[in-house]
Amino acid sequence: MEPTYPQPLVMVDTALFTIREERLCLILTRRREPPFEGVLALPGGFVHVQEDADTEMAARRVIRSKIGFDARYLEQLFTFSGPARDPRGWSVSVAYYALIPLTLLDQSQAAEALPVDALPPLPFDHPQIVARAVERLRGKATYSSLPAFLLPGEFTMNDLHRIYEQTIGARLDKASFRHKILEQDIIEPIPNRFRVGAHRPAQLYRLSSKALTPFERKI
Amino acid sequence: MEPTYPQPLVMVDTALFTIREERLCLILTRRREPPFEGVLALPGGFVHVQEDADTEMAARRVIRSKIGFDARYLEQLFTFSGPARDPRGWSVSVAYYALIPLTLLDQSQAAEALPVDALPPLPFDHPQIVARAVERLRGKATYSSLPAFLLPGEFTMNDLHRIYEQTIGARLDKASFRHKILEQDIIEPIPNRFRVGAHRPAQLYRLSSKALTPFERKI
Repeated sequence: MEPTYPQPLVMVDTALFTIREERLCLILTRRREPPFEGVLALPGGFVHVQEDADTEMAARRVIRSKIGFDARYLEQLFTFSGPARDPRGWSVSVAYYALIPLTLLDQSQAAEALPVDALPPLPFDHPQIVARAVERLRGKATYSSLPAFLLPGEFTMNDLHRIYEQTIGARLDKASFRHKILEQDIIEPIPNRFRVGAHRPAQLYRLSSKALTPFERKI
Repeated sequence: MEPTYPQPLVMVDTALFTIREERLCLILTRRREPPFEGVLALPGGFVHVQEDADTEMAARRVIRSKIGFDARYLEQLFTFSGPARDPRGWSVSVAYYALIPLTLLDQSQAAEALPVDALPPLPFDHPQIVARAVERLRGKATYSSLPAFLLPGEFTMNDLHRIYEQTIGARLDKASFRHKILEQDIIEPIPNRFRVGAHRPAQLYRLSSKALTPFERKI
C-alpha cells in the first residue's frame, strides 16, 4: 500500500574538495533562492523523480547545473535527516563527496573554493556534513589512490607526496610513502619522460589502469 | 521555495545479523501487506515524519514493531534509490545494519534467522542491500569490537575467537587474535572467574568500558 501520511522532502548535498595554494578547500556556491538566499552553501538540490535515475545521478545533475562540470567520481558519504535540518520541513539529504582538480573549477564563475579550516558560517546542517566529509576524506585518503586524481596526467613522486600530505593535513615520511605507492601499482613511470628543474631530472609518472577507480583501490 | 514536483517515497530497511548454530544469519520478517505480502523480507517501513526524529529512529521503531526488541546499536549502511526498486514508485531507502544476540530474537515469533548463504529469494532490491551489508560487516568485524556483542556478559577467549571466525566467515590464527584483542583493551578478565570443563579452567572475560561503542572501537 502507498503511504497515506506526508513524505519527507528528499535532496542531495555535495562536499567537493580540491587543493588550492596547498590547502584542502571545499567548493561552495551562493544560494540563488530562499531559504538562505545569497548565502554560501554546499551545492545541493531536490531529487527530481522524473529525471534522476537515483540519488547519485541527482547529485551529478546538481553539480553540472550549479558548478558546470561532470563529476567523474562521487562517493556516498552519509544520509542526514530530521524535522529541523531544513526550514522547509522534515527532510532527508543524501550527501556525496569527491576530490576534484582545481582546474575544473576555473571554468566556472559560480563557485568558490575556500579552505576547510576557514569556512564561513554555513546554512542548514551543512557544518555537520562538512565535518563528516573531512573526517571520511582524511581517513580514506591515506589508503586510497584518491588524492592522485587531483594531479594533472603527469606528475613526479614529489608532486604526489605533497598532494597526499595536503589532503590528509599531516606529514608523511617520504621514503615509506614512495615504497607504499610503488608497491600498490597505482602509478607507473612514463618511459623516457622527466621533468628538468633546478635539481636532477625527475621521473614523470601517470596513474596506472589499476588506479582508475579511486575509491576501490588501496595503497 | 518548496519543491512543486513529486517527492520520492522514503523508507528504511534493516539488515540484522546474528549467529545461529555457528553460522552468520540474517533476520527476516514475513511481509504483512502488499507488495510481496507474505514474503520473507528485510524488516523495513516508511518514515513517519510526525513520529520519527530521523531515519535512524525510524529504523529503531520498525525493529521494535516488527521484531519486538530495542536495537542498541545501528549503523547506517547505505542509501538505495531509484524508480524501480519498489513497485510503489520512485523511492529512497536508508539502510541500517547491526549484529544482535540470538537471545533477543527468541522473545518474538514474527522473525526468522536464516543463514546468509542460504537465503530465500528476497523482494525489492533487498539482495543488493544484503550483499552490501555482508561485505561491510565482514570488512568491519575484523577490526572492531562488534562481534563481541553477540556473546553473553561472560565469555572465554575461545568463545570470542569462535564468534569472530563465524562473523567473518574465515579462520583466524588463535595466537595473533588473542594478542590483538588484549592489546586493544576491549575486554578484561573477571577476577577469579573461570569456566571449568573437560580442559583446564578457562579465564572468563567481559567487555571493558572501552568497548562500549562497538562501531567506534578498533581491535
